[in-house]
Amino acid sequence: MEVKIWKDLSAKEQTDALMRPAQASSDKIREIVTSIISRIRKEGDTALFEYSKTLDKFEGEHIEWTAEEIRAACQRVDSDLKKAIDTAYENIAKFHSEQKPHHIKIETFPGIVCETHTHPIDSVGLYVPGGSAPLVSTALMLAVPAKIAQCPEVILCSPPPISDAIIYAASKSGVKRIFNLGGAQAIAAMAYGTESVPKVLKIFGPGNQFVTMAKRLVSNDAQGASIDMPAGPSEVLVIASDSANPEYIAADLLSQAEHGPDSQVILIALSKEFAQKVMLKVEEQLEKLPRREIAEKALSKSTALVVDTLDEAAELSNRYAPEHLILQIDNPDELIDKLRNAGSIFVGAYTPESLGDYASGTNHTLPTYGYAKTFSALGTDDYRRRYTIQRASQEGLKEIAKTVTSMASAEGLDAHRNAVVVRVKDI
Amino acid sequence: MEVKIWKDLSAKEQTDALMRPAQASSDKIREIVTSIISRIRKEGDTALFEYSKTLDKFEGEHIEWTAEEIRAACQRVDSDLKKAIDTAYENIAKFHSEQKPHHIKIETFPGIVCETHTHPIDSVGLYVPGGSAPLVSTALMLAVPAKIAQCPEVILCSPPPISDAIIYAASKSGVKRIFNLGGAQAIAAMAYGTESVPKVLKIFGPGNQFVTMAKRLVSNDAQGASIDMPAGPSEVLVIASDSANPEYIAADLLSQAEHGPDSQVILIALSKEFAQKVMLKVEEQLEKLPRREIAEKALSKSTALVVDTLDEAAELSNRYAPEHLILQIDNPDELIDKLRNAGSIFVGAYTPESLGDYASGTNHTLPTYGYAKTFSALGTDDYRRRYTIQRASQEGLKEIAKTVTSMASAEGLDAHRNAVVVRVKDI
Repeated sequence: MEVKIWKDLSAKEQTDALMRPAQASSDKIREIVTSIISRIRKEGDTALFEYSKTLDKFEGEHIEWTAEEIRAACQRVDSDLKKAIDTAYENIAKFHSEQKPHHIKIETFPGIVCETHTHPIDSVGLYVPGGSAPLVSTALMLAVPAKIAQCPEVILCSPPPISDAIIYAASKSGVKRIFNLGGAQAIAAMAYGTESVPKVLKIFGPGNQFVTMAKRLVSNDAQGASIDMPAGPSEVLVIASDSANPEYIAADLLSQAEHGPDSQVILIALSKEFAQKVMLKVEEQLEKLPRREIAEKALSKSTALVVDTLDEAAELSNRYAPEHLILQIDNPDELIDKLRNAGSIFVGAYTPESLGDYASGTNHTLPTYGYAKTFSALGTDDYRRRYTIQRASQEGLKEIAKTVTSMASAEGLDAHRNAVVVRVKDI
Repeated sequence: MEVKIWKDLSAKEQTDALMRPAQASSDKIREIVTSIISRIRKEGDTALFEYSKTLDKFEGEHIEWTAEEIRAACQRVDSDLKKAIDTAYENIAKFHSEQKPHHIKIETFPGIVCETHTHPIDSVGLYVPGGSAPLVSTALMLAVPAKIAQCPEVILCSPPPISDAIIYAASKSGVKRIFNLGGAQAIAAMAYGTESVPKVLKIFGPGNQFVTMAKRLVSNDAQGASIDMPAGPSEVLVIASDSANPEYIAADLLSQAEHGPDSQVILIALSKEFAQKVMLKVEEQLEKLPRREIAEKALSKSTALVVDTLDEAAELSNRYAPEHLILQIDNPDELIDKLRNAGSIFVGAYTPESLGDYASGTNHTLPTYGYAKTFSALGTDDYRRRYTIQRASQEGLKEIAKTVTSMASAEGLDAHRNAVVVRVKDI
């Protein structure tokens, strides 16, 4: 992790310092995933079971968990872990319940009343990745808001073997149908449905490049499924003043770096000396980490930038648009109003990112790879949709008629005009 | 427009009756648009001006309107039309102002406070189509919420020649930069920026197949731009009881059909006799329409379905998920709670779709082609983004520490665990 003085960099070097590594060229992945999707769409379970055997190495008899198997898995979870999941569940549920649907109703014009309403999306599919770290927290983060949004049908796919803890978290959050299915094949099955897996309308959750590509492809097809947000490698940006504790910051940087070799980690410090202190602590802590190799790879592409003022730090952060933004500075509230384009902000010495990853109650599904400039942190709203309603009285239509007919005429749309005229003649 | 008795149809015929026509295969369009985007990205204005000449047939000296030209255009707008635009503006502004950002703040656990905040998206680009119907209403529908959301930078592109009314509507809604630019080239310029056109973060607005493809392609690229929603041909579904006025319904069906030859129109009636009465009125009104040919083409692919009960009608509508849903039935409120998956609902005899298209105050940018199952009607929220903030006190972190460390251990993420441990040892 290199320390760079921001003002000493050329404009191009500055741009490069905040540039995310390009995602691997995806033509090959697109080709593989397109063929998986097309076969599952055409052949249903036949193709799905074949992929499940060859890609997921699944040897079980049925891909769907029975109610009995779910009960048994839940009972096997160690009571300490169960208690942890229960506490995280409570906090996530509290925060996401507070995100209530807001319905409005207003008379915009005498006799014309307009409303917004929302309803839960009819069916949603949740994807929980497996691999090197089985993400029990992701099961909570995806399933709790689905429950609070009251989605009638919620299914979950995860690559086998699914850990008992994931089953417990999903089951506690109201998921009744769980499938031993990973990768692009899981996304294809949920988007189009097979004999065993019901089609869903919207798919949520992170995944590897195959999952990400599959989500993009099915969301580009009107017959497929919508998705939560585009994906990218996880990332953190820490803004720290010299008064911060270098040990804490090093721990935060490493907790991001251990996610994967493509994770991005940026420190913005106010002095070179402080940045170097943090680097030393990173080296120290790195030695003891089981996932050291992964973290080292991530850190080799990461940077510490030294700026002169907190305002400059805010500007850089807004420009980078980090998924996670940690503030370890003296008066964070003064800076918060200047911050934009972050997925989630962690304020103060005692709010490590891992608190939000698991248990503060906020959702850890966040826009990354620059998408935090336009996409929101996942919330209960993403499981519902908003529509509008309008009603005009006779008098209301009569009074607004001229407005509609003038504009319709200006647009050359006679039938639009006529729909008002045939009514007004009767009033 | 054929009348079909729903219960007499086979399952396959039922599915077909609610099936949208497949969108034209887009390989050729994708190829053309990919090349336009790639050239504009590489060559900037040089390529853009070339496309502007060849595709937009633009012969002017500069693609951006000067402040003086905007003022002059506004003055040229006829006072009746200006008044109509002003009234529509007021209603749209009222309804979209009521859609306030909701920020929440809650203590999810003793000592842990979580919040959601929102901020306007830094820069947005609005696309207003030209062609056979210059859509002044679209300028209002896209620009008013951008203003209310307080987006700092708002630009607008529309194919030349842009009508004075569009300039007036945009200008009134706070748009300061307007470009004579249409088609895929406009989308490419806004997504990547050129010397003349600033890059924006999110692009809003409808368009033809080239515009739609360009929006999809730039939204699939992290360096490109986000978009409002996927596009498709416009559509209406009318649920009418025998007590409704066939003349009004015919006018509503035609106002949708005149949009384009691929517009979809569905009537759900409770008797064959009533459906036939509507068909007669459609024939009558069609004769006088200037856009008769377009409407006829749209109608030739449309259907009137006869069902036995209003519940059945609601079920069909939920299954089809119409962009516009018109209810001309006796007690609409009894049915409304059963309706889902519609973009916007028009209630009662005096609420034609064209009222919402222009002036009721609701947004006419709505999900279509089945996307109303997961996408929302455009609203002020779409111009802002939501993020979260969390803060833990020493005590809060200490009390929740076990929850985080247990879950991190279960996931095999030691550095996540460590970020809590290094802090708790100091408390």
